[in-house]
Amino acid sequence: MYEVIKLKTDYMTVTDVTDKVKAIVKKSGVKNGICVIFNAHTTAAVGIATKEEAAQRDFQADLDRIFPLRANYNHVETPFDAAGHVKCVVVGVDVTPIIKDGELDLGDDQAILFYEFDGPRPRELHVKCYGK
Amino acid sequence: MYEVIKLKTDYMTVTDVTDKVKAIVKKSGVKNGICVIFNAHTTAAVGIATKEEAAQRDFQADLDRIFPLRANYNHVETPFDAAGHVKCVVVGVDVTPIIKDGELDLGDDQAILFYEFDGPRPRELHVKCYGK
Amino acid sequence: MYEVIKLKTDYMTVTDVTDKVKAIVKKSGVKNGICVIFNAHTTAAVGIATKEEAAQRDFQADLDRIFPLRANYNHVETPFDAAGHVKCVVVGVDVTPIIKDGELDLGDDQAILFYEFDGPRPRELHVKCYGK
Repeated sequence: MYEVIKLKTDYMTVTDVTDKVKAIVKKSGVKNGICVIFNAHTTAAVGIATKEEAAQRDFQADLDRIFPLRANYNHVETPFDAAGHVKCVVVGVDVTPIIKDGELDLGDDQAILFYEFDGPRPRELHVKCYGK
Repeated sequence: MYEVIKLKTDYMTVTDVTDKVKAIVKKSGVKNGICVIFNAHTTAAVGIATKEEAAQRDFQADLDRIFPLRANYNHVETPFDAAGHVKCVVVGVDVTPIIKDGELDLGDDQAILFYEFDGPRPRELHVKCYGK
Repeated sequence: MYEVIKLKTDYMTVTDVTDKVKAIVKKSGVKNGICVIFNAHTTAAVGIATKEEAAQRDFQADLDRIFPLRANYNHVETPFDAAGHVKCVVVGVDVTPIIKDGELDLGDDQAILFYEFDGPRPRELHVKCYGK
């Protein structure tokens, strides 16, 4: 079972894709296994963190403070593209939640989040459910 | 095979759960496969790093230096709760070591670590062994 | 299917191992599944990020700026060894790309990268292909 989630992001935003992933898990029919969610881009990332939007904005602001846009990157494109490559490695491009009794085994406050470090752009998340 | 590790943490600590995960792998009977260890919380994280406790304290201190507790987060709770949400994304909530010949395939110096960025609190790690 | 990639790194370098992993996926015969790539070291890391070398150097430089070598770590070895332990947690030790139709399901600009935070040293990446 392999599905692609298509997104259209705005500049430096966080998108909650939890419901989209849950629908794929349900459709897969997998009762017990794992679910790999993979971001195929280099200036975006995927993570699992709080569903609270205020804290999501805090995270983007903190990352901007730590990796400020600057003109002296080796990477020659826009400064926010160069900074986005760095942020991508820090956050990561894949998460692997467990599937238990047909449901994603997340904590009550957790959401699956797509982090856009550039944008606006069309983006894709690849989802693979594995199990029985 | 799905098991829950229950922890009772202190404020801003690192807990080595390697032996607990090894016991679950043994109990699972999986000889070759993978082991997903998933943290279901938003102000805690899981990682694989050095078993040396001095270096673990260095890591918590460095994270505190980079993401200092501050009053101007958007997230409205305690400053260390808000900072914890940020740290959670940087460290991550899941690791997937390989199971080989019935054993966790870790390096000699590696340990599976639970990072508490708040606390003291009761916490849970979810463990799924997959394979044959 | 389990294989070990052996590397000989230089100090603070990034090594693109994408072609080596692709060869293992092909050899495994797995058509649809997942591929776990696991770094068994505590002063190195593995990630998936841009294949552009200039941006890879930016990343190492930014990590050095954030986690500068310093003499007051608790960990008593060289300062770059102590800083390497910290960087290892931030980047992570495992990635899990999807295998689709017998190929690694990476984005066009993505590469699988080994990050050396110490070195020069002999290093190992463990690769497990899982699926059918």
